[in-house]
Amino acid sequence: MPREITIHDVARLADVSPSTVSNLLNGRHHRMRPATKVRIEQAIDRLGYTPSRLARQLKSGYAPIIGLIVPSVANPFWGGMARAVEETALAHGYRVLLGNGERNLDRELAYAEEMWAQGIRGIIFGSSPLSLAHLLGLVKRGLRIVAFDRQTQRGDELDIDSVAIDNVRGAQLATEHLIALGHRRIGFISGPIRTVSRVDRLDGYRTALADAGIRFDRQLVWEGAETGGFGDIEGAQLGRKGAHDLLSLPERPTALFTINDMYALGAYAGARDLGLRVPDMVSIVGFDDIVLADIVDPPLTTVRQPLPEMTRVAVERLIGYLEKTTGEAAMHLSVEPALIVRGSTTRLGMQQ
Amino acid sequence: MPREITIHDVARLADVSPSTVSNLLNGRHHRMRPATKVRIEQAIDRLGYTPSRLARQLKSGYAPIIGLIVPSVANPFWGGMARAVEETALAHGYRVLLGNGERNLDRELAYAEEMWAQGIRGIIFGSSPLSLAHLLGLVKRGLRIVAFDRQTQRGDELDIDSVAIDNVRGAQLATEHLIALGHRRIGFISGPIRTVSRVDRLDGYRTALADAGIRFDRQLVWEGAETGGFGDIEGAQLGRKGAHDLLSLPERPTALFTINDMYALGAYAGARDLGLRVPDMVSIVGFDDIVLADIVDPPLTTVRQPLPEMTRVAVERLIGYLEKTTGEAAMHLSVEPALIVRGSTTRLGMQQ
Repeated sequence: MPREITIHDVARLADVSPSTVSNLLNGRHHRMRPATKVRIEQAIDRLGYTPSRLARQLKSGYAPIIGLIVPSVANPFWGGMARAVEETALAHGYRVLLGNGERNLDRELAYAEEMWAQGIRGIIFGSSPLSLAHLLGLVKRGLRIVAFDRQTQRGDELDIDSVAIDNVRGAQLATEHLIALGHRRIGFISGPIRTVSRVDRLDGYRTALADAGIRFDRQLVWEGAETGGFGDIEGAQLGRKGAHDLLSLPERPTALFTINDMYALGAYAGARDLGLRVPDMVSIVGFDDIVLADIVDPPLTTVRQPLPEMTRVAVERLIGYLEKTTGEAAMHLSVEPALIVRGSTTRLGMQQ
Repeated sequence: MPREITIHDVARLADVSPSTVSNLLNGRHHRMRPATKVRIEQAIDRLGYTPSRLARQLKSGYAPIIGLIVPSVANPFWGGMARAVEETALAHGYRVLLGNGERNLDRELAYAEEMWAQGIRGIIFGSSPLSLAHLLGLVKRGLRIVAFDRQTQRGDELDIDSVAIDNVRGAQLATEHLIALGHRRIGFISGPIRTVSRVDRLDGYRTALADAGIRFDRQLVWEGAETGGFGDIEGAQLGRKGAHDLLSLPERPTALFTINDMYALGAYAGARDLGLRVPDMVSIVGFDDIVLADIVDPPLTTVRQPLPEMTRVAVERLIGYLEKTTGEAAMHLSVEPALIVRGSTTRLGMQQ
């Protein structure tokens, strides 16, 4: 491997002090003589020097950067998650580079490959595909991955760390809450149910119904897609459409459980479009507890994902691997969800 | 420069075909003999080979990746913007790596430096600092930057491309709309007014007031910060707090113009907390036209930033530089804003 070009090489060739080079690189050259500037710039060009804190930090052979691949920051849940990941990473001296995979396996792989090629050795993978096979090659090469929002599945090709809310339990809590309020016709609104976390949430919904002796009615499960994607971007629109459809059924549901909060806010609009007030005429429960859940009218009853705690574990686990302070065995953390009851749900008897 | 290590080198050393190496790297090795796998892995380790589509594409000396630095994807406007940038970039064969700068100059610079060190030669810079001096060094080195949401200022250290809505005009439209509805006491709610775009929006608000002969009242300008940052993350909370404060004034404003839609949604909640209905008792106008603006109740009157068009110009401009199909002179695009009137504003006479 060729020796790394440093600021000292540039200074020597330009016949100035390293601090003068540094001044130029950092824009402090108001009082620098033009000839000096030109000499430094020529030296930089000749040596192909790349000014980079990164390079200086690269003693360990990897970049102090964590990769983060999420479905889409167009959903504020993932925006908030990215922000929480970054806070923890920064506290440990790492930065975060982010790619939107949109749950497209090719795109996820392309981002992961590029991050790898750039010296990133650890990725938090905030998607929840049914299979992780597409990442197998990179993991074999040494890439460390912590899965977020995807509990480990039997038959997984990879045994990687996972940090995920117990999605089955969360959906169960939401549905049980509605059942306890007297609801028996409860709609389920989602984008394509082709991710581990969505399959789990549908599972929790069905379990709660079964436990209460309520027959599962496939007609009440609305599974939409507008773009052929997974509905991460157009969640609010899909929630609205789902509410239109379900609330127009001859035997209309009195409550809706939506796959996440953006769908729930869309369902608010859908109910409103039909002249149905929330919660008086239809109760709605979301999932995630995004910042807006507490801001909207009525405030949204939802299942909280404790992002600060979850992201902290995920980031510290990843950094532990990178700095070799963590053992090799994968850890699977299942986080207990909490139901946050606000104003969007009410007792069936209260409905008009 | 040392010759790039290729899959062929690995294959030669391991005494297998390149496609066998490729199979292993891509996880297709179920039927591969263990001894072959070990041999390939040893060859990879010995040569320090990095499997990377990127490397193969790197004929031109730069990475087919665009850097994107935004204040924070915690604000769905920036989430949507990032998504729009990515769509255009992908259509041109580029991917996007994203960093949240949080309008912190050190952090913005650190991200830009790391992107540079990783072979990224073009960045869309979606922040709007009063000065661009911190980026001067990297631009001198050859980094191409397109500023987004920041119109060029007299006295700028850098003459770089800019794509921005006409923020003065946008705020003027919003304020004129309220004035036309009969409002004269109009609050202005913002985070710290220390960015070009925010200074411009305050300017437009003042201009509209002046044009209508309404005295500017400093008391009606609410400028909050909870974390010492710029309020990009906690916009909804700040909007709520600002509405509390302004709507509790002895001579209460009858309308509010907020610095962006997240603040507006927070202001909805703040008005509600005080028992003031929107728009009957207080009219509210936002800025951005995020997806939720049309979903909330009442739907939000706001100033639209045409993201698809703006991001397309920004990305194509940047790629033009990278591929040297664009001339060297910087271009400053000022985009005409549009007021989208929805249900959150009404005539003053309608107020109770």
